[in-house]
Amino acid sequence: MAKISMLGSGFIGRFYADSLQGQRSRDKIVSIYSRREESAKKFAEDYQVAHWTTEMEASISHPEVEVVCISLPNNLHEAAVLLCCKHKKGVICTKPLGRNAEEAKRMMEAVEKAGIFNGYLEDLVYTPKFLKALESVQNGALGRILWAKSRETHPGPHSEWFWDKEQAGGGCILDLGCHCVEIARSFIGKDIKPVEVMCWADTQVKPIDAEDHAIGLVKYENGAIGQFEVSWTFRGGLDLRDEVMGTEGTIWVNSFLRTGFEMFTTGKGADYVAEKAESNTGWLFPVGDELNELGYNHMFTDMFNSMESGKPARETFYDGYVVNAVLDAAYRSAKSKLWEPVQLDVWRGKTGVEKGKGYTEYDEQYYLVKEEMTHFGAKKVILKDKKSGQIIEKTL
Amino acid sequence: MAKISMLGSGFIGRFYADSLQGQRSRDKIVSIYSRREESAKKFAEDYQVAHWTTEMEASISHPEVEVVCISLPNNLHEAAVLLCCKHKKGVICTKPLGRNAEEAKRMMEAVEKAGIFNGYLEDLVYTPKFLKALESVQNGALGRILWAKSRETHPGPHSEWFWDKEQAGGGCILDLGCHCVEIARSFIGKDIKPVEVMCWADTQVKPIDAEDHAIGLVKYENGAIGQFEVSWTFRGGLDLRDEVMGTEGTIWVNSFLRTGFEMFTTGKGADYVAEKAESNTGWLFPVGDELNELGYNHMFTDMFNSMESGKPARETFYDGYVVNAVLDAAYRSAKSKLWEPVQLDVWRGKTGVEKGKGYTEYDEQYYLVKEEMTHFGAKKVILKDKKSGQIIEKTL
Amino acid sequence: MAKISMLGSGFIGRFYADSLQGQRSRDKIVSIYSRREESAKKFAEDYQVAHWTTEMEASISHPEVEVVCISLPNNLHEAAVLLCCKHKKGVICTKPLGRNAEEAKRMMEAVEKAGIFNGYLEDLVYTPKFLKALESVQNGALGRILWAKSRETHPGPHSEWFWDKEQAGGGCILDLGCHCVEIARSFIGKDIKPVEVMCWADTQVKPIDAEDHAIGLVKYENGAIGQFEVSWTFRGGLDLRDEVMGTEGTIWVNSFLRTGFEMFTTGKGADYVAEKAESNTGWLFPVGDELNELGYNHMFTDMFNSMESGKPARETFYDGYVVNAVLDAAYRSAKSKLWEPVQLDVWRGKTGVEKGKGYTEYDEQYYLVKEEMTHFGAKKVILKDKKSGQIIEKTL
Amino acid sequence: MAKISMLGSGFIGRFYADSLQGQRSRDKIVSIYSRREESAKKFAEDYQVAHWTTEMEASISHPEVEVVCISLPNNLHEAAVLLCCKHKKGVICTKPLGRNAEEAKRMMEAVEKAGIFNGYLEDLVYTPKFLKALESVQNGALGRILWAKSRETHPGPHSEWFWDKEQAGGGCILDLGCHCVEIARSFIGKDIKPVEVMCWADTQVKPIDAEDHAIGLVKYENGAIGQFEVSWTFRGGLDLRDEVMGTEGTIWVNSFLRTGFEMFTTGKGADYVAEKAESNTGWLFPVGDELNELGYNHMFTDMFNSMESGKPARETFYDGYVVNAVLDAAYRSAKSKLWEPVQLDVWRGKTGVEKGKGYTEYDEQYYLVKEEMTHFGAKKVILKDKKSGQIIEKTL
Repeated sequence: MAKISMLGSGFIGRFYADSLQGQRSRDKIVSIYSRREESAKKFAEDYQVAHWTTEMEASISHPEVEVVCISLPNNLHEAAVLLCCKHKKGVICTKPLGRNAEEAKRMMEAVEKAGIFNGYLEDLVYTPKFLKALESVQNGALGRILWAKSRETHPGPHSEWFWDKEQAGGGCILDLGCHCVEIARSFIGKDIKPVEVMCWADTQVKPIDAEDHAIGLVKYENGAIGQFEVSWTFRGGLDLRDEVMGTEGTIWVNSFLRTGFEMFTTGKGADYVAEKAESNTGWLFPVGDELNELGYNHMFTDMFNSMESGKPARETFYDGYVVNAVLDAAYRSAKSKLWEPVQLDVWRGKTGVEKGKGYTEYDEQYYLVKEEMTHFGAKKVILKDKKSGQIIEKTL
Repeated sequence: MAKISMLGSGFIGRFYADSLQGQRSRDKIVSIYSRREESAKKFAEDYQVAHWTTEMEASISHPEVEVVCISLPNNLHEAAVLLCCKHKKGVICTKPLGRNAEEAKRMMEAVEKAGIFNGYLEDLVYTPKFLKALESVQNGALGRILWAKSRETHPGPHSEWFWDKEQAGGGCILDLGCHCVEIARSFIGKDIKPVEVMCWADTQVKPIDAEDHAIGLVKYENGAIGQFEVSWTFRGGLDLRDEVMGTEGTIWVNSFLRTGFEMFTTGKGADYVAEKAESNTGWLFPVGDELNELGYNHMFTDMFNSMESGKPARETFYDGYVVNAVLDAAYRSAKSKLWEPVQLDVWRGKTGVEKGKGYTEYDEQYYLVKEEMTHFGAKKVILKDKKSGQIIEKTL
Repeated sequence: MAKISMLGSGFIGRFYADSLQGQRSRDKIVSIYSRREESAKKFAEDYQVAHWTTEMEASISHPEVEVVCISLPNNLHEAAVLLCCKHKKGVICTKPLGRNAEEAKRMMEAVEKAGIFNGYLEDLVYTPKFLKALESVQNGALGRILWAKSRETHPGPHSEWFWDKEQAGGGCILDLGCHCVEIARSFIGKDIKPVEVMCWADTQVKPIDAEDHAIGLVKYENGAIGQFEVSWTFRGGLDLRDEVMGTEGTIWVNSFLRTGFEMFTTGKGADYVAEKAESNTGWLFPVGDELNELGYNHMFTDMFNSMESGKPARETFYDGYVVNAVLDAAYRSAKSKLWEPVQLDVWRGKTGVEKGKGYTEYDEQYYLVKEEMTHFGAKKVILKDKKSGQIIEKTL
Repeated sequence: MAKISMLGSGFIGRFYADSLQGQRSRDKIVSIYSRREESAKKFAEDYQVAHWTTEMEASISHPEVEVVCISLPNNLHEAAVLLCCKHKKGVICTKPLGRNAEEAKRMMEAVEKAGIFNGYLEDLVYTPKFLKALESVQNGALGRILWAKSRETHPGPHSEWFWDKEQAGGGCILDLGCHCVEIARSFIGKDIKPVEVMCWADTQVKPIDAEDHAIGLVKYENGAIGQFEVSWTFRGGLDLRDEVMGTEGTIWVNSFLRTGFEMFTTGKGADYVAEKAESNTGWLFPVGDELNELGYNHMFTDMFNSMESGKPARETFYDGYVVNAVLDAAYRSAKSKLWEPVQLDVWRGKTGVEKGKGYTEYDEQYYLVKEEMTHFGAKKVILKDKKSGQIIEKTL
């Protein structure tokens, strides 16, 4: 049983609480901190939390608390983490870890120095679909991974602080790109170094300083490419999709808008409002169990099982730091219009990995370019002469 | 915390156990009964169960046990239930409740007389998609429900006892139709009486005595129609789909084969075997989290929350009995080729419900038949004269 | 080049004309007949037809006309056909052929006696998806066909005469069921006799005399089952789906609402109206090329190629007659609540076909019930003893 | 009626011929040229072409020929075009027009100088889905277009010359990117200037000199972004998808692998081979009518209707030239790793277009950032102060 201090009572804090105390969970939030008294009280009441406070340290240091869950705006993560270090409480922190890699690195170094359990709440690498997809990739079902794309776009976040660059640290790249980068990185291999980033970003629609739309390519040391597509200007709901290409296969995951649940309503029957949809009539695409589909349940299970067994979580502050370093390069690239190197002072994976290569032998003289069935049922091969480089075609 | 005796260590018992003790659950299987010692021991080891036995009563009467989970072949349900009554332990029983309504009724009467908690483990009315769909229907998003179809077909069950009519009590109608009937009944309204059933059934492919394919229509007192499509001869995996039509809307649910997760693999990369799929190369459609998608998690949560709060579960032995009564009528119909009445000695819902009707008024003289936009952007109405019955068309 | 007289200038006549004279077609409508002068003139103008008239016979007998296309309300088909016989003009007639089998039979006998080319315009067995699916079925990709379902539901037809039982001859069974019956019959085999029909039908919503919702099962002599689901009360657009189950495979076809074209619009941008959709904002599912997707192009190509080469079309008046005979049985069944025999005075297919059977041999002693991979990677078989009937399980 | 000389009898020439002479077309191939006599004869026989030759000029200059259809390897386009100019025959040329913009420009200038009809056979902007999507975009259903992505990936082309950089002029960027660029350009507006390109390209799998995988971003003068994703290393079939984001809506088009036609086959029934699929068992996704779905029918209709009415086709050599210029920039960028300007000596669209902007007014003091419904049913707005730049939240 984990006894939790929740920092923050907003949209994400409540979502986390629904998961933490949902189903038949043995875990319990024992203290809630919110800047506003009214909000802290309401949360305490709704989730039957014994202790509430408007002082962050009072919650963290509360004697019953074993682990602190940070659900605060990005600019408040570091201070909270440092208090956890001071009081030697385990800490799990929402995404992105920092507003930039420097901040993230300080947090990582602090928790490691303090020797406390630390987990990075990157829920989208804990969705059931992702976990099964990753298992297939790791089993080799897709062969060598060539490209992994993750897309998260929607009509914009719910709380006002996201739209303020100072508090948030950036726009949709930071808010959504952090998910996409870690998804692609996981498929390609978390031990493979991300080396450089090319990113386009623009503020196309919203009256804000930060970007509301961006696309980036992340090149890994083994030649694989990660791609992110993020936006706060998408119309139609929450678009969450991943695609992976390998030499032997393909994966397509749709995590939200097309999951096998489709509803049409004229709206005459009732004041029905579909959650998070942009409309409440016509064809709607609800998600059955958002908490589970978004990975919260499996994420907290990994966090607390790891904590209780003394092992690191699948996602630690180190992962949060790597993600921030990639996003920093993306921001630099969006400005410089160049491929920008990923600056990783700390790197714990492989180094010097060579580019994957896999020419298929046909025979001593030829490489196989392609093999296919012709319309006439015969097998045709396209071959390349290893020496001359000439391409020929043979029907077998 | 629920302390459970599990009766049966086969496919379904293990599936239940994965859910019961999965994620961060506070519930615990404290005793396992299996007919075969080897199987009981293995289960106890795998799920860290303190007590195992090959005597059913020893498990049920075990002092730590609060509630008994029956995961046995159909012909063993009744004996197990009677032992639970004898020892005053709560009981939750897998589907179908009985091999027929008579058996189910005896079980229902026994648990009610004994005053013990009873739950009917009809998981498919607990899937997250179903629960959200039902909520929309109950909110009126679809208007008056006209028709609800549920389809479950696959290439046949895993264990041999299913294929033996004596143990199973029937073929795919009993095995799969029990799900479909309760799904449709839930959408139409569990207080609306199912009145008669027409069913076609045949043994088209398998060398067995029971049916391997059937289609049935269930007429409810309010004129709504439930439809079930069940088969053990389907090729391509597990096809689980529901459809609902109402006067104001439509719901389509695909619970297994198309849920937003698609994978192609040449099979060269690895010996990957996709669970429950009929093939392990080409395009595959895995399900992210089977336990959750199949409703197990939400089902056990309802069961134990209900038990702990002293309320009846959403699905009780009474529901199991109603389902058996509908299936009995289906079997009779498949033989007699007639619409057969559903015989319900016990009925706790509404009676004398009239057929739903909803002519739309247009004005004093006319009913509205249809309204549509013409190609020219004008609104057109088709009307019926209330008195003369004449149909006319008007462009507005 | 085919020179066509078009009888009828309504919705379906225009749809046909768009196909007949569409793309780079060499065919030409040379005469248009409409009951209303204004409508005839408008059609002539829109489609550049040289001759228009309000007298049916004048169009049919027009010297340039080679073939007559009947696009009239159901109650006017027979008279038009008889005029074609009189003037020895080829005739192609929209669906359903007659309001009942008697009428259809008279038309069939008339055209055959007159020796004129006759085609039955059942477009949905000419859709590109259907044609390719049928080819796969005929190649054996699905093994022995067990069941073929076709569903057509929408919010009701466009023209007022459909809603008038006298003119239309019936409700959605006749209007939509004719498509579904011929689709299922084609998959099962047009030479296999449909023997009996069970049908439920009701008027659940609309203020009309005919049925607005029906479901039917058609049993064929070889034991295969055709199923139709038809309604004028569906909400959400035009739902056109087919499913086929065979011993070796499955086919799912969605012809309209989910064809790989999805659009979301707030509706703010423009007064955009999506054709045939029930709404013009939110998620919409347009069809790229309705004429092609609905089979019109391939249908007319078959008709005129057949006519020019002196061969019968794939769909003749005989097929229309068989369909009407099946629908007659459906109407009788909806009233009698019995499986009603299909009365076919004329039957040109096989007779005395035995029920398909395909027990799979395992060895001398056993039939194979099922074969599957266990979780442990071993192969498991479920077998039935040929003599004792006992079911056993073996892990190999 | 168009009388056509076909240059080239390979895969694409046959595909074109199937469309040109398909259905009830009035057009006719009157001469076929192929480098190999055997191939020319075979084509003439299969398509009933009166004249065949192995001399290109003999076919072009054949007196019956009105229009020449170039279906040759990329390096032979220019010579063929010049002969058409010489003989004043109309010319339609397969994609890409040239191996680079220089070549394309020479062709464009030659046909314009000669005053002959010229069409660029970019079929994918003629698919029925694309045409309807474009119409919606042009009607304003999506508001201002922000981003248009087109993806074409498959396991590699059929003929050997594609794999030879000299003949083909490049790899998958040239072969597939030409489609994607014109699709995105069409959605964004063909009168909007593409200004610069960023492209990643690599040879990840195939033993060839050219790229087998590439991703590119094309920036347009109005700030909109076109994106192409192309590969010859994709596993699973032909992946053809487009996506468009606008301020008021979204479009998703799947043109090949998910079009509402799904088949599962064990392969036991027959030697069925699904066309173009990578496997012939398991789940397969055939396309109903490839010729129509790939745009050939609508493309040739536009070409010949335009030619006959003396109007330019929707796609002319000028468009082919613009596409080549964009692809040239992509190739330069893949090498330089910089955003490369699109060099367009000839530009016939708008110039000096400003970046689209569309801040939504809320009132005198504020811009609207976002509006949404809260869980409590209240409307919430997020606003930005026009002067201070401060972001605030208001519940109404």
